[in-house]
Amino acid sequence: MDYDLLIRGGTVVSSQDMAKADVAISGGQIVAVGALVGSAREVIDASGMFVMPGGVDTHVHLAQPSRGPEMCDDFGTGSASAAAGGTTTVVCFAWQGKGESLAEVVKDYHQRARQSMVDYAFHLTITDATPAVLDQELPSLVEEGNRSIKVFMTYDGVRLDDAAVIRVLAAARRNKALVCVHAEHHDLISWMGEQLVAAGLTAPKYHPWGKPMIAEREAVNRIVALAEALDVPIQVFHVSGKQSAEEIARAQARGLKVWGETCVHYLTLVAEDLDKPGFEGAKLVFGPPARTKADQEALWDYMRRGIIEVISSDHAPTRYDDPKGKKFAGEDGPFTQIPNGIPGLAARLPVLFTEGVTKGRIDPPTFVRLVSTNPAKLVGLHPKKGAIAPGSDADVVVWDPKKTVTLTNAVMHHGGDYTPYEGYQATGYPIRVLVRGVTVFDDGKVVGKAGHGKYLARAPYEKITPLGRFPTPFNPVDRKIV
Amino acid sequence: MDYDLLIRGGTVVSSQDMAKADVAISGGQIVAVGALVGSAREVIDASGMFVMPGGVDTHVHLAQPSRGPEMCDDFGTGSASAAAGGTTTVVCFAWQGKGESLAEVVKDYHQRARQSMVDYAFHLTITDATPAVLDQELPSLVEEGNRSIKVFMTYDGVRLDDAAVIRVLAAARRNKALVCVHAEHHDLISWMGEQLVAAGLTAPKYHPWGKPMIAEREAVNRIVALAEALDVPIQVFHVSGKQSAEEIARAQARGLKVWGETCVHYLTLVAEDLDKPGFEGAKLVFGPPARTKADQEALWDYMRRGIIEVISSDHAPTRYDDPKGKKFAGEDGPFTQIPNGIPGLAARLPVLFTEGVTKGRIDPPTFVRLVSTNPAKLVGLHPKKGAIAPGSDADVVVWDPKKTVTLTNAVMHHGGDYTPYEGYQATGYPIRVLVRGVTVFDDGKVVGKAGHGKYLARAPYEKITPLGRFPTPFNPVDRKIV
Amino acid sequence: MDYDLLIRGGTVVSSQDMAKADVAISGGQIVAVGALVGSAREVIDASGMFVMPGGVDTHVHLAQPSRGPEMCDDFGTGSASAAAGGTTTVVCFAWQGKGESLAEVVKDYHQRARQSMVDYAFHLTITDATPAVLDQELPSLVEEGNRSIKVFMTYDGVRLDDAAVIRVLAAARRNKALVCVHAEHHDLISWMGEQLVAAGLTAPKYHPWGKPMIAEREAVNRIVALAEALDVPIQVFHVSGKQSAEEIARAQARGLKVWGETCVHYLTLVAEDLDKPGFEGAKLVFGPPARTKADQEALWDYMRRGIIEVISSDHAPTRYDDPKGKKFAGEDGPFTQIPNGIPGLAARLPVLFTEGVTKGRIDPPTFVRLVSTNPAKLVGLHPKKGAIAPGSDADVVVWDPKKTVTLTNAVMHHGGDYTPYEGYQATGYPIRVLVRGVTVFDDGKVVGKAGHGKYLARAPYEKITPLGRFPTPFNPVDRKIV
Amino acid sequence: MDYDLLIRGGTVVSSQDMAKADVAISGGQIVAVGALVGSAREVIDASGMFVMPGGVDTHVHLAQPSRGPEMCDDFGTGSASAAAGGTTTVVCFAWQGKGESLAEVVKDYHQRARQSMVDYAFHLTITDATPAVLDQELPSLVEEGNRSIKVFMTYDGVRLDDAAVIRVLAAARRNKALVCVHAEHHDLISWMGEQLVAAGLTAPKYHPWGKPMIAEREAVNRIVALAEALDVPIQVFHVSGKQSAEEIARAQARGLKVWGETCVHYLTLVAEDLDKPGFEGAKLVFGPPARTKADQEALWDYMRRGIIEVISSDHAPTRYDDPKGKKFAGEDGPFTQIPNGIPGLAARLPVLFTEGVTKGRIDPPTFVRLVSTNPAKLVGLHPKKGAIAPGSDADVVVWDPKKTVTLTNAVMHHGGDYTPYEGYQATGYPIRVLVRGVTVFDDGKVVGKAGHGKYLARAPYEKITPLGRFPTPFNPVDRKIV
Repeated sequence: MDYDLLIRGGTVVSSQDMAKADVAISGGQIVAVGALVGSAREVIDASGMFVMPGGVDTHVHLAQPSRGPEMCDDFGTGSASAAAGGTTTVVCFAWQGKGESLAEVVKDYHQRARQSMVDYAFHLTITDATPAVLDQELPSLVEEGNRSIKVFMTYDGVRLDDAAVIRVLAAARRNKALVCVHAEHHDLISWMGEQLVAAGLTAPKYHPWGKPMIAEREAVNRIVALAEALDVPIQVFHVSGKQSAEEIARAQARGLKVWGETCVHYLTLVAEDLDKPGFEGAKLVFGPPARTKADQEALWDYMRRGIIEVISSDHAPTRYDDPKGKKFAGEDGPFTQIPNGIPGLAARLPVLFTEGVTKGRIDPPTFVRLVSTNPAKLVGLHPKKGAIAPGSDADVVVWDPKKTVTLTNAVMHHGGDYTPYEGYQATGYPIRVLVRGVTVFDDGKVVGKAGHGKYLARAPYEKITPLGRFPTPFNPVDRKIV
Repeated sequence: MDYDLLIRGGTVVSSQDMAKADVAISGGQIVAVGALVGSAREVIDASGMFVMPGGVDTHVHLAQPSRGPEMCDDFGTGSASAAAGGTTTVVCFAWQGKGESLAEVVKDYHQRARQSMVDYAFHLTITDATPAVLDQELPSLVEEGNRSIKVFMTYDGVRLDDAAVIRVLAAARRNKALVCVHAEHHDLISWMGEQLVAAGLTAPKYHPWGKPMIAEREAVNRIVALAEALDVPIQVFHVSGKQSAEEIARAQARGLKVWGETCVHYLTLVAEDLDKPGFEGAKLVFGPPARTKADQEALWDYMRRGIIEVISSDHAPTRYDDPKGKKFAGEDGPFTQIPNGIPGLAARLPVLFTEGVTKGRIDPPTFVRLVSTNPAKLVGLHPKKGAIAPGSDADVVVWDPKKTVTLTNAVMHHGGDYTPYEGYQATGYPIRVLVRGVTVFDDGKVVGKAGHGKYLARAPYEKITPLGRFPTPFNPVDRKIV
Repeated sequence: MDYDLLIRGGTVVSSQDMAKADVAISGGQIVAVGALVGSAREVIDASGMFVMPGGVDTHVHLAQPSRGPEMCDDFGTGSASAAAGGTTTVVCFAWQGKGESLAEVVKDYHQRARQSMVDYAFHLTITDATPAVLDQELPSLVEEGNRSIKVFMTYDGVRLDDAAVIRVLAAARRNKALVCVHAEHHDLISWMGEQLVAAGLTAPKYHPWGKPMIAEREAVNRIVALAEALDVPIQVFHVSGKQSAEEIARAQARGLKVWGETCVHYLTLVAEDLDKPGFEGAKLVFGPPARTKADQEALWDYMRRGIIEVISSDHAPTRYDDPKGKKFAGEDGPFTQIPNGIPGLAARLPVLFTEGVTKGRIDPPTFVRLVSTNPAKLVGLHPKKGAIAPGSDADVVVWDPKKTVTLTNAVMHHGGDYTPYEGYQATGYPIRVLVRGVTVFDDGKVVGKAGHGKYLARAPYEKITPLGRFPTPFNPVDRKIV
Repeated sequence: MDYDLLIRGGTVVSSQDMAKADVAISGGQIVAVGALVGSAREVIDASGMFVMPGGVDTHVHLAQPSRGPEMCDDFGTGSASAAAGGTTTVVCFAWQGKGESLAEVVKDYHQRARQSMVDYAFHLTITDATPAVLDQELPSLVEEGNRSIKVFMTYDGVRLDDAAVIRVLAAARRNKALVCVHAEHHDLISWMGEQLVAAGLTAPKYHPWGKPMIAEREAVNRIVALAEALDVPIQVFHVSGKQSAEEIARAQARGLKVWGETCVHYLTLVAEDLDKPGFEGAKLVFGPPARTKADQEALWDYMRRGIIEVISSDHAPTRYDDPKGKKFAGEDGPFTQIPNGIPGLAARLPVLFTEGVTKGRIDPPTFVRLVSTNPAKLVGLHPKKGAIAPGSDADVVVWDPKKTVTLTNAVMHHGGDYTPYEGYQATGYPIRVLVRGVTVFDDGKVVGKAGHGKYLARAPYEKITPLGRFPTPFNPVDRKIV
């Protein structure tokens, strides 16, 4: 036998091109692409199918220690849901609580991640930016491959103030780590929430009123300015609409190492969707909130122009009908008390493919770029992940571009009790998913084994050429900054 | 006698035009302008002279209670210096200390201001935004004519955090007051200062390094966003260079009620000027700091385009050779400990006229607009102040556009021991200055009497049409903001 | 008697301010403004009225030699219409035909203008840019006070190609003249017209289809580029919508001497208004055509921001029900053959006041700036015209801001058989109009005498400070232009 | 034998990635890429080498019929030069003279192209836009695979006026062809030239003075506007500096199908380089001319941002020391008479690699994108050309990234007597070049055979997804355009 596995007759969709080609896999890696000769232990007939690199989802919350409301996906259900949606790599959050050792948190999180069936890496969520964490723990944590840090500019108990953000940026710079940011103006949101609640406007549908676009735009501008001052690469998470995307575009036009991510729900949901009977709107409470149709069009436009380069799920699930979930503060509690976040891991690829490729907004290589290649590049996993190319891990999705599936909660294979896409007709769906050559999803069934997933140590940031932009020198003490 | 006073044969320079005309004054007011018939008790021959409205300086620190370093001008020396430079109205800062009652502060400040020889109004500097101040004291203080509030986004012990800024903006909105802002990113400046000091770069010349333009640009963007969210008119104080001016321009292009001020020193000094032997550079320590030649050119350009509409002095004097002044922390103290601020009241008009009109950058009506009409309009004093027109107060400067004066500390008539413009050749100088028809400066001598100045209660903001832009409605509870 | 005339008790509206003041007039000039003592031969009681400088309309077609369709206003009816609408100065077009001597044209036009009852100046319309005209005739014509040149970038038989435009710009530069431009892309318009006619879309309502905004935007960009290359000041006539206004804004932001004009009809009419029964739409055929509501809002915004600084009438009347007028090619002729132009002289001030001041979009000083002061400044007539100030000509409108008049053709006092504003309710109307102290319109009646108007020789351009911007040096042979 | 040829052990550089991989070739095509098993008739050891798709040069003038000065490369010398520089596909110009049949021109050009050793396609240069050409000849010519049209906005005897450009755009739209444009304002250039010559400034170094950036910027804006009005995709040739690139960026941000090309000489030469003794500067006369260092930096920046997507040679060679070449009008002739154009085919890849990759400005995949993949995509040749992928033509360059070569005229292998890069040290050079599997350049020697090259019929434009942007509908008669 020349190869372990041959995927024959499909159309390989790379981040740039599409071409009919066979794909040969051995030892968990792709070893050849083309009109291949030779034999294999197994042959998959991919005629009429797309053969794409597995999805890379760089914004996934799984098995996070509870801060009040309880997350309803651990690495078991979460990685099953990933596999069921064609995603073969997740980057999750090793989440420091106040007063905790980040090193301990990471150690513990490795334990939690062991049951994953897809590969995984960690962002380091810092909520307590002490010298101990930044000076003593961070260097070795980054060295071990955790090359990105997450900071929150809002949410009580989690957010860092600007002084702490600056210290984190400086530490990221010293350790060559990327900083990912949840950018909203905390005090403006808090004040808006208080005003609305005081006026008796407490229903879920007022959630978007309380987190206006201007609060996000301002925070994006601010984190860009701080990153520019310290010359640190950043990724702005969940850009929700036009004004924030414009700030990203302005930053990139100045040559800054600033990247933007958006999520599928900003492309498919609008603020009005929260206006549902009773407490149902709570199912769509996430932050930043859904915006307008015009914002959706703007996001598609920025994606086509290459300003928004990554589409993630921001999978952050809590159960709806559950006092530990969305009903944490009861059905009469004000929107300000509803836990933020929705499930989205399994829906990400099918919904984006449907909205993007099937509806003619983007072509298949752009789809691959947005959900797989670019995220892998940005976090330092490419070309190991995010490519159908010799030497890459054999993370492969055999995708039927014509298959229509009606999304339901069951189809999501996650731990929650609802999906925001209930009833959605997806056209384009994974029919077989491989992680390092091993099938984890096949014809609608999750067949992977818990524990198949491996931790991915990532290369130092300097070895990454992230999406084509270039570093500029900075040293606050040897040049004059006026 | 038909009039008290006739100024004959001069060229009246209004904010728009220049024309030969007589000016008649009675009862402290201008009563007629033109080729006038009639007699007067006194006639001033203004042949060859410009006849302009007295300067209105809306950014003057006098007699402020000490917060450590001591201010070296009270309303006596300060108003003398104003008169000596052609300024007939000053707007000063009733400055609340932590824990103090703002009403008491204003009451006390009225006492301090009694010795002024020029007219005056008060900005309310809020450093402790308590409910008592905002809800109980502010309404009547604004009602009494104190129609503007000053907030600091930086300086320990003085600054408000964003939550407090929002509360102040909301209170300003309720009471129809303008908010004036010192905009620099506090934490970024603090961090930069620490880095520089830790690296041993402590001399005065490193002061501009520690307050980079990016810290100012960010804060301008932030205060604009907050003012936009709450729909409150603001004036950004001391715009020091191009990037901040661009933020002002962007805000105005969106139709926001955002105005920009710059100061004479940003048009004449650059960061390199602080690089002087010994501690001499401390004489030019002010914040935001001096920038570059390119920034100066940009500021002139924005002034010509009408983006920057007001030129103030930001007169904030401390003595140089004095342990209560610039040498507060000794000559070896790091730049971060040097009191910020320079004297500039008397120099404002002569230096701007020289740099602007004499050197051909602006025409005389633009000069009048920048130093008198626009500031009067913005704070609600026009047309009482800032105009040579029937019904306006007879605040008049007879100005010799050809007279050359070498600036020295003595010529400034202020309380300090230096001027940043020592040796500067000014061409264009006031030769006679009247406040409500009474001469306060004549041929190089201050002749006004302490106490001639009056407090100016200002009209509610809604009655002002400030520089031609328009309000938009806002109500956080009756419209959806996404 | 101290004065010839005293206007007592009104509110003088200048380009900047409003104030209660008397106005004294002697010898045809304003001699004093304020609380005036003294006696006068006549006293006008202006209590409750605005007292404003007479309108200056710098874009008026009167008594032009026929090029096919016939203009229905000579200087007699035209100046009566001006007076009836509060306009006291018109700048008209001495229009060169192909092969004609421009000097002869001007000579003849002086004859035609003699019957005017309001003052007048001439733009030089050049349609045949021969060396004889540019090198031999132009210098003395400009010297005689004709300080502006009009060129057309479209209209067969009238337009100059770009090579000729460049020669005219170079000549304007040598002679210090302003160049006014009708900017539309000729070939694009022609092609669009052909396509539409070929498709049978010939009705008047297709006229705006045939002159798309893009054709105007392109031509504005082009003339700005040519004027920038040769460093010549230009005014872009009849900016009809957002895209063109943006080009003006971009040019001004680069510091270029580029000014924009719009007309009342672009603020009140939209393309759909041409969709009328039968041939009625022809009454609204003018070029550039009416655009959209969004364009109107954009124009108001640009006016408030000071980007669009002049509002003219572009009065260019032909009769509607007349084979020498709009029905030149019959009622079945394609829109491409309908003579362009509408009457608007008398309606300009009342309609703009109603739409602007009465409806709260602009304040009265802005109104005065747009219709009187700015146009006077730009063409070199200020402060003789466009100001209520000592030394200015006594061109005064006593304006009742509350008077409501229903506009009809009769009220226009012009030579045509229709007004595009038939039935329009104007609130704010002139009740008395003076030209150099002589009443020409009083209480609804035109009372001026033919021939009262005088030719206004204008000062060389270098003596004008047009709206505050500044020249930059240019010499194609002594500096390198890359 | 499994394959004809195996290239083993190299680093395959695609337009996105780099990876160690073997490349298998059979039947002139690439059949597999990866860690390949199997045997081959020939094996190339590419250890330490880059294996890249052959260069695609979409802007090459060869064997054009003489219009006065004589071109010194036919398809024989030209294609040898291409091969010697790593370029395996050229797109040349079937150039219509005034009054000529375009069909005949193409027929004749096929004859001329027969001696090529690299593959070729044709742009259709239209200089006489008659109905016969546009309506009768163009449809079948495009159908035969000539899917792009070239128009000139300047150069006497060649240029089309705007009316003709519009007709060509409309024809291109009907036939689904791309339009490539030489954009400079003809009349402005002519006028500048006349002024300079009249002033005695005739030396070659004045050539850039006579073609200022503003003339290019204006024309780019104009052609973009026309293409926008008619909704036709265009490529702007030889963008020479910042201002033009900004126009391209603005067009792309509006979603238009506008692409920009620049050439290696705009990245390496500046206007001052023409200031050489005697007539030597004539060697660098090309249009648009070389600009400034700042323009070069801007172009690199726009390339990195993806605004400028294609780098061509604009190979347009005439001999220097030749009365039929640069000395056409003698050594004393004014710069306006010097034939425009320089040789550049062989230098394109080595110089861009040196300036870009070796000097650290771009990474190898970006290099491949700019010189091979993007040009192939834009003209409709990808993935047949421009890719190392199964199914693509085996046009392969084995490239030594460390090899240093001093460029001389001999090394260029072209027909001319000079190279503008004489003495340039290139680091990075092709060591073996294959066209459809056949070696045409090997170790410094051209070994290809005349006639090996084939004509490339290109697919209809609608089948191309050119660089990721999308069509918008347009129909001048069924929608209103205001």
